[in-house]
Amino acid sequence: MDRKEFRDLASPDEAREAIGSLSLEGGVERVPLDDARGRVLVARLDAELDVPGFDRASLDGYALRAKDTFGADEADPARLTVTDEVHAGEEPAIEVGEGEAVEISTGAVMPTGADAMVPVERTDTEGDDVLVRTAVAPGDNVMFAGADVAAGERALGPGTRITPRDIGLLSALGIDEVPVRARPRVGIVSTGDELVRPGEPVDSDRGEIYDVNSYTIAAGVEDAGGEAVLYPHAGDDQDEMERLLREATEECDLVLSSGSTSASAVDVIYRVIEEQGKLLLHGVAVKPGKPMLVGRLDVSAPRSDGSEDEQRSSSGQSAYVGLPGYPVSAMMVFRTFVAPAIREAAGLPEPEAATVEGRMARQERYAEGRLRLMPVGVVTDGDGETLVYPVDKGSGATTSLAEADGVVEVDPGTDYLDEGESVTVHLFSPDVRPPTLLGVGEDDPTLNRLLDRLENPRYLAVGTRPGRRRLREGVPDVAVVAGPIDRHGAATAEAEHAGERATGTVELGRWDREWGLIVRPGNPAEIEGLADLIDRDLRFVNRTTDSGLRTSLGAAIADLADERGTTRHDLVDAIDGFDLGLRAHESPARNVAAGDADAGLGLRTTADRLDLGFVPIDDQPVRVLANPDRREKPGVRELARTLETDGYQQ
Amino acid sequence: MDRKEFRDLASPDEAREAIGSLSLEGGVERVPLDDARGRVLVARLDAELDVPGFDRASLDGYALRAKDTFGADEADPARLTVTDEVHAGEEPAIEVGEGEAVEISTGAVMPTGADAMVPVERTDTEGDDVLVRTAVAPGDNVMFAGADVAAGERALGPGTRITPRDIGLLSALGIDEVPVRARPRVGIVSTGDELVRPGEPVDSDRGEIYDVNSYTIAAGVEDAGGEAVLYPHAGDDQDEMERLLREATEECDLVLSSGSTSASAVDVIYRVIEEQGKLLLHGVAVKPGKPMLVGRLDVSAPRSDGSEDEQRSSSGQSAYVGLPGYPVSAMMVFRTFVAPAIREAAGLPEPEAATVEGRMARQERYAEGRLRLMPVGVVTDGDGETLVYPVDKGSGATTSLAEADGVVEVDPGTDYLDEGESVTVHLFSPDVRPPTLLGVGEDDPTLNRLLDRLENPRYLAVGTRPGRRRLREGVPDVAVVAGPIDRHGAATAEAEHAGERATGTVELGRWDREWGLIVRPGNPAEIEGLADLIDRDLRFVNRTTDSGLRTSLGAAIADLADERGTTRHDLVDAIDGFDLGLRAHESPARNVAAGDADAGLGLRTTADRLDLGFVPIDDQPVRVLANPDRREKPGVRELARTLETDGYQQ
Repeated sequence: MDRKEFRDLASPDEAREAIGSLSLEGGVERVPLDDARGRVLVARLDAELDVPGFDRASLDGYALRAKDTFGADEADPARLTVTDEVHAGEEPAIEVGEGEAVEISTGAVMPTGADAMVPVERTDTEGDDVLVRTAVAPGDNVMFAGADVAAGERALGPGTRITPRDIGLLSALGIDEVPVRARPRVGIVSTGDELVRPGEPVDSDRGEIYDVNSYTIAAGVEDAGGEAVLYPHAGDDQDEMERLLREATEECDLVLSSGSTSASAVDVIYRVIEEQGKLLLHGVAVKPGKPMLVGRLDVSAPRSDGSEDEQRSSSGQSAYVGLPGYPVSAMMVFRTFVAPAIREAAGLPEPEAATVEGRMARQERYAEGRLRLMPVGVVTDGDGETLVYPVDKGSGATTSLAEADGVVEVDPGTDYLDEGESVTVHLFSPDVRPPTLLGVGEDDPTLNRLLDRLENPRYLAVGTRPGRRRLREGVPDVAVVAGPIDRHGAATAEAEHAGERATGTVELGRWDREWGLIVRPGNPAEIEGLADLIDRDLRFVNRTTDSGLRTSLGAAIADLADERGTTRHDLVDAIDGFDLGLRAHESPARNVAAGDADAGLGLRTTADRLDLGFVPIDDQPVRVLANPDRREKPGVRELARTLETDGYQQ
Repeated sequence: MDRKEFRDLASPDEAREAIGSLSLEGGVERVPLDDARGRVLVARLDAELDVPGFDRASLDGYALRAKDTFGADEADPARLTVTDEVHAGEEPAIEVGEGEAVEISTGAVMPTGADAMVPVERTDTEGDDVLVRTAVAPGDNVMFAGADVAAGERALGPGTRITPRDIGLLSALGIDEVPVRARPRVGIVSTGDELVRPGEPVDSDRGEIYDVNSYTIAAGVEDAGGEAVLYPHAGDDQDEMERLLREATEECDLVLSSGSTSASAVDVIYRVIEEQGKLLLHGVAVKPGKPMLVGRLDVSAPRSDGSEDEQRSSSGQSAYVGLPGYPVSAMMVFRTFVAPAIREAAGLPEPEAATVEGRMARQERYAEGRLRLMPVGVVTDGDGETLVYPVDKGSGATTSLAEADGVVEVDPGTDYLDEGESVTVHLFSPDVRPPTLLGVGEDDPTLNRLLDRLENPRYLAVGTRPGRRRLREGVPDVAVVAGPIDRHGAATAEAEHAGERATGTVELGRWDREWGLIVRPGNPAEIEGLADLIDRDLRFVNRTTDSGLRTSLGAAIADLADERGTTRHDLVDAIDGFDLGLRAHESPARNVAAGDADAGLGLRTTADRLDLGFVPIDDQPVRVLANPDRREKPGVRELARTLETDGYQQ
């Protein structure tokens, strides 16, 4: 078998067919009525009794013979003798004869002899008599036995997805247990030496990362109506992995694994499929998602242990799908190929087409000859139109999907999508709500608190410089920028400021933040300022040039160079670690905390939060800039109000 | 307090306000990641680490110094010495020096010294050397630490409803437990002497009925994001009912009861509210739903039992809503007033407006000065337009909602809705799928089996005569009629047949069914035919005149009268029970089975199914008639195909 190269890629349709050829169904189970919501009936349920089971008074009043009221009205009531009373839950004691009436409660059994009832509001009592001030016809105000549901009537058909209303009908019929499709059991086997389950410690030096796919796919399985079974992580123990795969095959209708980068895991999977089933498909022409496997796993002879047997696949075989290892790829393949098959096996309909039409916010090139499943975010522009932008944090990113709203399917024949081109976004689920506000730019603790108070914001902490660029490109609503404006007259800052004026960018608010050097608790190295980094042998951790902090640091070093009559370049060269910029705003501080550096660039609030020491250098303004076309957008107005409330408005 | 009369009705807005003034929130709980799907975060989660936590190779290939590849291409590769290899999950053992490369797997840690990597496809090996056939820049094919998520970055905001994608992000951050809003605990207390929980035997003679509201409302509570707690049914024990109400108050954030027709239950509820809280609202101007109560119940002093304390309402008080007793009223009030409050407390957004515009299929009069919540069904007509028809099986019906798709809200000022008038239907939920086929008419076992094979049919077993009428009125797609056409020339049947021709009604298919007298097993009374009912002292149970069976019976008696030279009327008078018609097609048989009658009108299939005896009288045709405008509707075509498959097509 040709293992790691996928030369003859199957088409997406072939992949759907291969999965469709496998039986994922979990059989039938009986569930109590209070667990039946959302489950799918496997058989028709007919009424086994009449509802109501008796002729029933619809109101409080008097049961009587209708013909005794003929001609009665307000002025000339019929006088009847009240012989008894009957309440709900009681068996009537006597018959109603001519000229007689029985006081009756709503829901009570109509006594024999009575064929109608009169509501109490249309009567008066006089001693033991009742004066009936209206004429009624036989059947008036009575619900006859079976009028609601008749015995033998078809109540619910097979395939019904049980709603609260259906539970009402089943309750009325006295049914307390219903036969439903078992949820397909989907086993998730985690492979990969480098993966660690969330909650356990991760060793980055060894290249360990958290296992993203297991819980994510499990949640996707449950979303699709399956029952996810998470098998323990086998690590790099090949025998254990093989044992788990075989166990999952025995117990589940479908086994999923997500491709590992370790060859040993792939080998085990191939071996188990070869020995115990058949590989149907090997590589699909989609991007992302090429390395997808589809196979059939036959269940071995039944075990002697009866309790295990009950959990066995009902079909005598299990389906196997190997998902790609990268989380975004794994989820895309799962959503596109696996979830529909699980829904079908669970008897659930495909969700109503949750799609949004929009225009591409920028050109996107693509020419790989494979169907592309492109994760995208959407944002509403100033005219209320939907803009669509690709979300791609690079191959291997685990989190892109959390920043996306849906997927655009790009045909293999499409070379590029032009800016402004119309596309259809398939939302991840019908209840996806695109963000009310799209912001980009600097990461900042004050900003984070502000965002917490907004309805449904999305903020991409790309840094000040990319934030400015994206705002100019017209995608986000706002950009948050930090760095020098006036005091430190850096050329770039000036240029950017001029750019703001030229494009009509609006400043919605601003605040200052104190930045400086984050040092170890108690400042054991006795660092007093920037000069120490230059003049002493200290290890420093910087931020990337995307960060506004880095811009301010550059300006401060330029000032110091002026003071010293030297060049900025000379000073920078003297700082050990100046060129090693980290993207994350807390990472320099965490390096200091871990003892890997003496000082890191950061904010006082970060130092305080992480119980580290802080050597202040200066304040820098943080500014919230809005796209002028979006000022009236509700999410932008909400942000502006929040800024105003907190006194951050200019 | 004015108990059973609701003179000063609150407006719907006042009712919403009253419920809104109560705290239903259940506090905060921590749930493991694999239970977090669909839950709502209470606090912002920031990244506590970089993802990835190290500089990570994005592909399989060679880690190297970018500048060693400057100028390399296919023709003129750079030759580097391979000094080591590093796989995912391993700590690199050595640094990469000038002219050196380390073989590296996807996901592995970039060794110190290397600043880029080259994919294996662009290389060849020669002994210990690698020939690199492309130039790379620093950072190429490397995902830097924190590039995916940076430590300190805002990951998920408060109020996020956790999707599988968010579970991916949380997994990547190693978070295995999240703080979410507790689901509001909603206690459901069932009152009413006459109510029996499904699964238990019901005594119709005593007027007992199944408790529809408890499970239905529990399902509605779960749908809205609450946790339903069903308290045991107290029956008519006032002390027990009071004890349960107080227990529910202690344990839940909201207590619901549904109005009972028994005065004692109402008394208990009023007493508990008076002693332990405050009645805020008493009667609302909606139909159905007038008798609604809203109150506050204060929680008494904490109990000494710690385990009970944990379950106590977090707010020191519990909300109380008394729902009307009739199931349709209870569900309408629940949906309109209570479910939104539960969703709000659960932190879930209101479902996206799931509405359908349609035209009223017929005029609907209404002039009661209250907001009307009118349950309706929808059906697509031949032009693809949506017709809306009210579903109302009468006051006290338990099952109307199962036949409805949504609700039309009719303003208090509206006297009637005209046929053809545009209305907005609020679907019961966004995933309500209106039926593909709407049929009405006779109940029939063959039909039921046919319906089981259709996608999503709705069939209202109203009987042959109302079925014909509704088909003429233009609402349903098809009517199923049973009864004499040719052989027994009853005048009504002739007239109906002529009507079919006049309106262009299309017969899609037909079959015959054998009808006669259902008798006790073994036919102990030795009944041989209709004559026995007339000539002997036997108790008979008939069907209503809506039923096609009754029409055929009438025709058979008319034939017998002709034979005997007497009138149909004389023969009918001689049959004990002829005038007592039951609506349900199995009810006569069930009366016979219960020993309440000697013979009942019915089908052979019914007798066989219930193991009863059968005395055949004749066959009657069952015909499926279609509205001529709906012949091309997909659901009608699907039915026609199914009829054809089974050989029932004409």
